[in-house]
Amino acid sequence: MRDLALGADLACINTATLGFREPLEITARRVAEAGFGFITPWRQEVDELHPERAAQVIRDTGLKVGGYCRTEYFTADDGAGRAAAVESNRRAVEVAAILGAPFVVAVVGGLAPNARDLRGCREQILEGLEALKPTLKATGVAIALEPLHPFYAADRSLLNTVEQARRWCERLDPHGEGLFGIAVDAYHVWWDPDLEASLERASDRIMALHVCDWMRQTGDPLLDRGMMGDGVIELARLREAVESHGFEGPVEIEIFSKENWWKRPPQEVLRICRERMNTVV
Amino acid sequence: MRDLALGADLACINTATLGFREPLEITARRVAEAGFGFITPWRQEVDELHPERAAQVIRDTGLKVGGYCRTEYFTADDGAGRAAAVESNRRAVEVAAILGAPFVVAVVGGLAPNARDLRGCREQILEGLEALKPTLKATGVAIALEPLHPFYAADRSLLNTVEQARRWCERLDPHGEGLFGIAVDAYHVWWDPDLEASLERASDRIMALHVCDWMRQTGDPLLDRGMMGDGVIELARLREAVESHGFEGPVEIEIFSKENWWKRPPQEVLRICRERMNTVV
Repeated sequence: MRDLALGADLACINTATLGFREPLEITARRVAEAGFGFITPWRQEVDELHPERAAQVIRDTGLKVGGYCRTEYFTADDGAGRAAAVESNRRAVEVAAILGAPFVVAVVGGLAPNARDLRGCREQILEGLEALKPTLKATGVAIALEPLHPFYAADRSLLNTVEQARRWCERLDPHGEGLFGIAVDAYHVWWDPDLEASLERASDRIMALHVCDWMRQTGDPLLDRGMMGDGVIELARLREAVESHGFEGPVEIEIFSKENWWKRPPQEVLRICRERMNTVV
Repeated sequence: MRDLALGADLACINTATLGFREPLEITARRVAEAGFGFITPWRQEVDELHPERAAQVIRDTGLKVGGYCRTEYFTADDGAGRAAAVESNRRAVEVAAILGAPFVVAVVGGLAPNARDLRGCREQILEGLEALKPTLKATGVAIALEPLHPFYAADRSLLNTVEQARRWCERLDPHGEGLFGIAVDAYHVWWDPDLEASLERASDRIMALHVCDWMRQTGDPLLDRGMMGDGVIELARLREAVESHGFEGPVEIEIFSKENWWKRPPQEVLRICRERMNTVV
């Protein structure tokens, strides 16, 4: 298991952790100063008509780009809605290439607004992902499929386990060309009784490892995520499992916490993130 | 697929659906009058020192007992806590026998209050269940293991998928003596990408089918469950899958709904339950 305390090269901040309260230029500077080597920005922070500006802002801090968040939902009640999502997600891939991000994180979408057909909606997602392949090949940017906690199945993601993501990778990228991989987020997968076996089977597909913590009394499953060490997830065990199968990327901190961490000064949040990265993760 | 509209013999009410607002005697009478043939009571409604009284109350209405809810959590921070849970759960099995319930529903417990060790806590649960076997054999009552939605892994149940429940049955009851089975609740399992295959593999272990609905915008994951047809679950498809593998028990309605259904008159709730059983489930 790698020693995260050694350096910035293993540590990434997802900008969601700071609650999008400041422009990317300031956020990136803070992240670099706090001892992180990577940043993963969100689309809302980037002018996608002029992405070279955000690329320059990040380069100026010396940071590398961990990934780019995130796809729009591929599910929709009509074909026009699905086509618009693919179009937007193609643009995300192109922007990621300009930013120097190795992948776009995919949050794939739940049931379409008026749908109940799980299988049909999962097929919509797979078709949408398939449609991105020419752009992925042209840019060299991958899609990191992120399984979300089953709590979000109805409204955010019908991709809910590592094993399911692995199967989707097999279908979308059968020859392992690196077009599709998996973003493993501790918050979403920690409960899975099949997790260790799933990670082993998926080892050559894992592109990202996200960490935060699951609070025992979770008020809001979307925006009440915890700082590493404050909740119940055995983060070191998870990281060991992922790294033992060959994962070499940075560990990315992503904390959605409307009532707690998003209210604290960004410098304080980053300082504690850095400490916990060394002591808990 | 069976025609649920045909009669009471296929329809069960779990008393949680009515919010525990009236004594069992009144609840049982209402359930029988609404056209249900089975009732599944909770321990808080039964005087476990004199369970023959509750048994008589139910018998007087002509209802049969679908199951008995539920075990206390098997996980605890010390051995005394775990022993107390086993003792209480033994009593639940004995009472179930007196009530004429074929099984006690097991909600197994999440992480012990001060624990993070998933594997250790799962072992605590399996040891606790194992300790019930003499009582199960003596009474002829089974334990129906209920996988709970992964949202509850930290604080209510480390048993979260049908496949995991099947594996536990294999371990606890390797010769299929009927000591341990599975209660499949639509609310908890609907999202599972492996559900259909899991149900097929577990077909000879399924003891109960619970229904309600998952609301697209779920406020409170514990107490905001929906009436069948108001949410997103494909209930008829689920029932067809379970019945196609041989399930012959009643379909049990269990709705925890603090802000909606628990505020409506019990007769109205039961009438709508009966209608939806015929039209949606």
